[in-house]
Amino acid sequence: MSGLPKPIQELINEFSRLPGVGPKSAQRLSFYLIRSNDGKEKSLGTALINLKSELTFCDDCHNITISNPCDICEDVHRDKKIICVVEEPLDVIALEKTGQYKGLYHVLHGVLSPIDGVGPDDLKIRELVERIKSGSFDELILALNPSLEGEATSNYIQSSLTGCEISITKIAQGLPMGGDLEYADDKTLIKAMEGRRKC
Amino acid sequence: MSGLPKPIQELINEFSRLPGVGPKSAQRLSFYLIRSNDGKEKSLGTALINLKSELTFCDDCHNITISNPCDICEDVHRDKKIICVVEEPLDVIALEKTGQYKGLYHVLHGVLSPIDGVGPDDLKIRELVERIKSGSFDELILALNPSLEGEATSNYIQSSLTGCEISITKIAQGLPMGGDLEYADDKTLIKAMEGRRKC
Repeated sequence: MSGLPKPIQELINEFSRLPGVGPKSAQRLSFYLIRSNDGKEKSLGTALINLKSELTFCDDCHNITISNPCDICEDVHRDKKIICVVEEPLDVIALEKTGQYKGLYHVLHGVLSPIDGVGPDDLKIRELVERIKSGSFDELILALNPSLEGEATSNYIQSSLTGCEISITKIAQGLPMGGDLEYADDKTLIKAMEGRRKC
Repeated sequence: MSGLPKPIQELINEFSRLPGVGPKSAQRLSFYLIRSNDGKEKSLGTALINLKSELTFCDDCHNITISNPCDICEDVHRDKKIICVVEEPLDVIALEKTGQYKGLYHVLHGVLSPIDGVGPDDLKIRELVERIKSGSFDELILALNPSLEGEATSNYIQSSLTGCEISITKIAQGLPMGGDLEYADDKTLIKAMEGRRKC
């Protein structure tokens, strides 16, 4: 009985450590790369090894960037009076894709989650408070995910900013575009009703 | 408006080229690796770059291996009178996992598929015929996937071996038509091996 050659087994093990990749998918991906003749495995390998060498975090917004401060913080055309607080760098990308928001960002790198041992000091909350206090922002938009942890983090940030002269807003919760009222969960419907606005 | 930093975008592009990985999954995987602090991206990258450097093909069975002849062909405890023909190296692994089959293998590296331009010369069929003619095998087991192409390839191999004194069998159709050998469970594979019949 013979196992797999070591280089293949190692690659399968490494793929299996990625989220959402099971042992069978890892096997498929590995053999796909073995069969490919165009050096895909080398270019993916190089991209992985180079991944972090150029990356850093913006000292202002804490987003991932190759220049510090990042392009958004440096952009003279952005509205420096508005700051939008998000959980992750991917949320910045999602908001940037809309092309509507022109203010600055602040990336927390997570949410408060006592169950996972994530407290305020593990996030960029202190940095946010300092940034607000030392800056001259008019509005802070809380754009955290509508989860228990997101809500708790929003509340924590709000209480940390008591005394600051800044208008704190939160992105609306309600039915998503293209959503179906009859399939919406109770919490979404309650939030949508609560957030109703005069037409 | 700023795009993604180049190293991240490159990694997302490379992940997207893998089968079954869409742009959203590629983004998720990339950011997962950025956040990980245990060097996962470096070890996956190294595994990818080293993947093919040590790998070769066994001159006898044409399976992927690091030693030539491979461990199975070299194993004195294997039954050198039986040879099992499979499409892909993954099929060898699937059969080896059952622990039931003790003979040798022959990996074709595909099946006849005129629509994809795969003819007999693109597979290891000539090598199989030579191996049978120059060896002293008692039985050849056709263990190709139960697909149209698999059937056609089985028939082609049978007709190529007319005149050879070898018993040709085919694994039982315990596998559903259109199914995939590498995903079959062990019991199904054992049943299929036990139920092989003389052609």
